[in-house]
Amino acid sequence: MISPVSFREEIRTNKFNTSTAGYCQDYVQANLVIVPKEYAFDFFLYTYRNQKSCPVIDVLEPGQVKSALAEGSDIRTDIPKYHVYKDGCFQEEVTSIASYWQKDFVSFLIGCSFTFESEMVKSDIPLKHINLNKNVAMYRTSIQTEAAGPFSGPLVVSMRPIKKALVDKAVAITEKYPQMHGGPVHIGDPAEIGITAIEKPDYGEFVEIAEDEVPVFWACGVTPQAAATEAKLPLMITHAPGHMFVTDWTNDELLNRK
Amino acid sequence: MISPVSFREEIRTNKFNTSTAGYCQDYVQANLVIVPKEYAFDFFLYTYRNQKSCPVIDVLEPGQVKSALAEGSDIRTDIPKYHVYKDGCFQEEVTSIASYWQKDFVSFLIGCSFTFESEMVKSDIPLKHINLNKNVAMYRTSIQTEAAGPFSGPLVVSMRPIKKALVDKAVAITEKYPQMHGGPVHIGDPAEIGITAIEKPDYGEFVEIAEDEVPVFWACGVTPQAAATEAKLPLMITHAPGHMFVTDWTNDELLNRK
Repeated sequence: MISPVSFREEIRTNKFNTSTAGYCQDYVQANLVIVPKEYAFDFFLYTYRNQKSCPVIDVLEPGQVKSALAEGSDIRTDIPKYHVYKDGCFQEEVTSIASYWQKDFVSFLIGCSFTFESEMVKSDIPLKHINLNKNVAMYRTSIQTEAAGPFSGPLVVSMRPIKKALVDKAVAITEKYPQMHGGPVHIGDPAEIGITAIEKPDYGEFVEIAEDEVPVFWACGVTPQAAATEAKLPLMITHAPGHMFVTDWTNDELLNRK
Repeated sequence: MISPVSFREEIRTNKFNTSTAGYCQDYVQANLVIVPKEYAFDFFLYTYRNQKSCPVIDVLEPGQVKSALAEGSDIRTDIPKYHVYKDGCFQEEVTSIASYWQKDFVSFLIGCSFTFESEMVKSDIPLKHINLNKNVAMYRTSIQTEAAGPFSGPLVVSMRPIKKALVDKAVAITEKYPQMHGGPVHIGDPAEIGITAIEKPDYGEFVEIAEDEVPVFWACGVTPQAAATEAKLPLMITHAPGHMFVTDWTNDELLNRK
């Protein structure tokens, strides 16, 4: 298996630029939200009030480009794809944000459910999107997050079809990882959380739900991205959904931190 | 036993103005740090990086005076004594900060070890400072906290002499409460954590350590106050050590929050 350091190097040099789902599986992957310092307190408070969807695992102070969780890392280049938003509107997808960088940029790394996927796979819970080499399916729900300053919006969830007989096991495994969204927020009928078209995810790619499977929904680190969009910040940069920052910390190391 | 609502009412009307140690024992008590919005992100990051000493339990947005943890509360009046600092220097002790209030003030409530004291008392672990109606003894240590922006400084600890035979029990009880500093950071020789004069606490009041007792040290919510002092903020307001904000939440309710 490729090491996180080498994997980040491949990303930095544009040799890898697709979804990181299924890569460096023992290592913590993270969502990214970058906001100017002016909005950093309100955004931090939003993550604090919505820890299930926004479990912060590292904060890079204004202008800082190296994460404490990843040796030699550069937050401007070490993610396969970034999304740039201006006034809350999607502007462009880029493989580097070096040209956008400002010395007042504060970067938040937020836990990602990709992290617990390796535990599920190891425990013989098949994850179709990984087997099909697809990005995970993500949906905006009718569940509202708790607001902070200008930040508010719907809870975004990731969905994985799980064999009925394995749902309890999947719940137990993911509950062990509160810093990566923990246990599911919903199991079963998508309509109950406001998802009307399961075959059309808001982000990522749809995978079929078979007869013997149940859709299981976990809080997703795209939630703060949705909130930051609704806040209409003059400038904000995030990872492209599914294209994560890979750290040097194993899932278990982060679990036992402090 | 007096309810938190009535107790805050007594404090607000200046009928009560001493240490809150031992009062409303089933209810969560909190440390307070107020900083102007300009410094709120850096301070929030400091608490995030030092969760053992600075476990944030509520944040009041700029200008907000009511804590979500305390019905009808007013952060400007509901603490028995406040300390006002200008440019990092202690200015005065007051029983209300209404005259100082600014609409950009952000208030952080931070978990307090008074909260787990009631559990210790219930479990027949005598706490001398409560029996003697004294404030707990607090010390600056040689252990450094992790810095964030202008905030840095020593870990401050509270000390309680515990009977040797009961130390393990005290550890087990307090470890149950990570949001109120959790288990001890040190047990035994004060010199090992840089405390050279145990009889002269930096804050609070000394209580004798008997032959059959061991000094046990817990991380203390005065830590962020020390850091904020060293950061020399133009203006900062805190509770007076030992004079806490009493919430409506029981210890167990907060423990099981989310």
